[in-house]
Amino acid sequence: MKIVIAPDKFKGSLTADEAAAAIERGVRRAVPDADTIRIPVADGGEGTLDSLVAAAGGSKTPVAVTGPLGEPVTAEYGVIGGGRTAVIEMALASGLLLVPAEQRDPLRATTYGTGELIRHALDAGCREFIIALGGSATNDGGAGMLQALGMKLLGAEGQSVPPGGGQLGRIAKIDAAQWDKRIAESAFTIAADVQNPFIGAEGATRVFGPQKGAGPAVIEQLEQAMSSWADRIAEATGMRLHDKPGAGAAGGLSGAFLAFFPARMRRGIDVVMEQAGVSRLLQGADLVLTGEGRIDGQTAGGKAPLGIAQEAKRQGVPAIALAGAVGDGVAALHAHGLCSVHSIASSPMPAEEAMASAAQLLEQAAEQIMRAFACGRR
Amino acid sequence: MKIVIAPDKFKGSLTADEAAAAIERGVRRAVPDADTIRIPVADGGEGTLDSLVAAAGGSKTPVAVTGPLGEPVTAEYGVIGGGRTAVIEMALASGLLLVPAEQRDPLRATTYGTGELIRHALDAGCREFIIALGGSATNDGGAGMLQALGMKLLGAEGQSVPPGGGQLGRIAKIDAAQWDKRIAESAFTIAADVQNPFIGAEGATRVFGPQKGAGPAVIEQLEQAMSSWADRIAEATGMRLHDKPGAGAAGGLSGAFLAFFPARMRRGIDVVMEQAGVSRLLQGADLVLTGEGRIDGQTAGGKAPLGIAQEAKRQGVPAIALAGAVGDGVAALHAHGLCSVHSIASSPMPAEEAMASAAQLLEQAAEQIMRAFACGRR
Repeated sequence: MKIVIAPDKFKGSLTADEAAAAIERGVRRAVPDADTIRIPVADGGEGTLDSLVAAAGGSKTPVAVTGPLGEPVTAEYGVIGGGRTAVIEMALASGLLLVPAEQRDPLRATTYGTGELIRHALDAGCREFIIALGGSATNDGGAGMLQALGMKLLGAEGQSVPPGGGQLGRIAKIDAAQWDKRIAESAFTIAADVQNPFIGAEGATRVFGPQKGAGPAVIEQLEQAMSSWADRIAEATGMRLHDKPGAGAAGGLSGAFLAFFPARMRRGIDVVMEQAGVSRLLQGADLVLTGEGRIDGQTAGGKAPLGIAQEAKRQGVPAIALAGAVGDGVAALHAHGLCSVHSIASSPMPAEEAMASAAQLLEQAAEQIMRAFACGRR
Repeated sequence: MKIVIAPDKFKGSLTADEAAAAIERGVRRAVPDADTIRIPVADGGEGTLDSLVAAAGGSKTPVAVTGPLGEPVTAEYGVIGGGRTAVIEMALASGLLLVPAEQRDPLRATTYGTGELIRHALDAGCREFIIALGGSATNDGGAGMLQALGMKLLGAEGQSVPPGGGQLGRIAKIDAAQWDKRIAESAFTIAADVQNPFIGAEGATRVFGPQKGAGPAVIEQLEQAMSSWADRIAEATGMRLHDKPGAGAAGGLSGAFLAFFPARMRRGIDVVMEQAGVSRLLQGADLVLTGEGRIDGQTAGGKAPLGIAQEAKRQGVPAIALAGAVGDGVAALHAHGLCSVHSIASSPMPAEEAMASAAQLLEQAAEQIMRAFACGRR
């Protein structure tokens, strides 16, 4: 039997690579002579850089940039496709994991460092970009990034507006005189796993502001600022980001890409599957095993297991998913090609214990599911 | 597809009947037009009476008898096979569940009520007996039961020895003059799921005494008493129960059956499967789903899922087991016909929560496993 193993990471427990290895060990215990292929995937969030570099056989370059709160951080970007395509995971320069919980401040957090990463890649000769948007600390509508690439964002008195989502309301004029000319020659693919608009009840601020440290009063400030920024962008570019699906990803950074760069949005998992050649690898497979930390109704929104299942369905290959936790709403996934969904928990246990033993539990669950499937096959 | 559903109870959460219904609901959600058969099973422990009566289409008769500590209890026995076969679950008269935890006292607990149940069934005309041995509160080597059926157990001065495992050492003489004559005309099948001998390191007292409330000093008393009783039985009958496998079940009650009754021992699950006609029902089945509260290496000792798997293997039908908790050692079960073993836990959770939601978790797990199996079948 040919078994393709294509999980996402199990957040907080296993990288996608570790998850794939654990599943493979389990598959081999059930079917020792199985022909297995491991494809660690990602959906545009954290881990997408490593997934793409591994899948496409590229390299990573470390570079010192400005962190979310202005402090220096060492980030990295990937180069694939023979040196021409850069992979940038915004979270490595402007991500929430870079900010200690008690210092979270979306009023001040900036995407300036993400812009610096892009500039470094342009300097290195890259003209194609894959930007992974998950895990941001920021709610600045991409203002910091634009400034790092030469855009002037000026207040009423003509001074440059300081960084952070709290300052967006002061932007009166967008001056593109020094905008990096290489951007117009480049192609940007924005890999996101969310479809939120720029502002409003489902927008960047109201939906994701709280997890970035914004209390109710700050949420109102940020929303007002973002709304004003959307107006300025519409005046300058003709593009209305306000209700545009996906423009709100990464605290509105996505909208800045759509308005100012030659950019298209794609589901992160589709970008990863394309680079990894999942389509071709699925040919003739008997089963694909996927999974991630938690699977529930939200998975239908574009998370890795769903993307894998959809591609598998296109190829007539059954897909089965394994998760640390299986929530409500999974019935909707079956129609997309996900044959069945299983938790790796072997008994009632505290979450900490499950996460600490994730590799072993995943291996054991993969073995038993492989057995059940193989049983049906006999 | 034809799916046979044959689980044991999930102790503390679901009866075998409830478990079978939950699994069936899950199977139907996965494969709406499946042809399903529910066979709630038991392995000789608690629930065996209900399982046999349901399987064989019999009835149950309530009767007041002597409880484990001498108090009156309302027990019941079953009648199947057209009125000729009695099913007696010793735990309903002499079981641990009848004794509040703080009153547990294997020095005093007696099987007298079990003997009374047998006498009632004899009075009703039964001459075939199935005795289910699990869940005893007693460690009296069946002395109480023998006394209830006319056996005189006399001390050195010729007085009847009082009830309880603590008194066995005082038995000097076994007088069968008043032994119920109908017993010799009857056939007794002792259904047990353990193979422990009468005495010794693996014997009734040392292995099961603690869970019946015996501390270390009491264990020594009981073991000495049981050893003496084994000697008296050997002198009276020629049968040495000391090391006899299975003689220790139900605090040695099993040994009394073997020594004084026309009795044979059989695995509880085999008795249940026979009465339920599992063999015939498995013919042409695509899959049998079994399970119980906990499955681990000990399941190989004769618990229901193993018995079901072995019968299924004989018939070339794959078997899959579902459990509340899956422990170590399950690899050994695959060789016996158990294709795969799965926990019903959907995520890390406390045991109490899992047990409270057992029906729902079992239904959901059964659905997903059925999907995975059906997927393999396509």
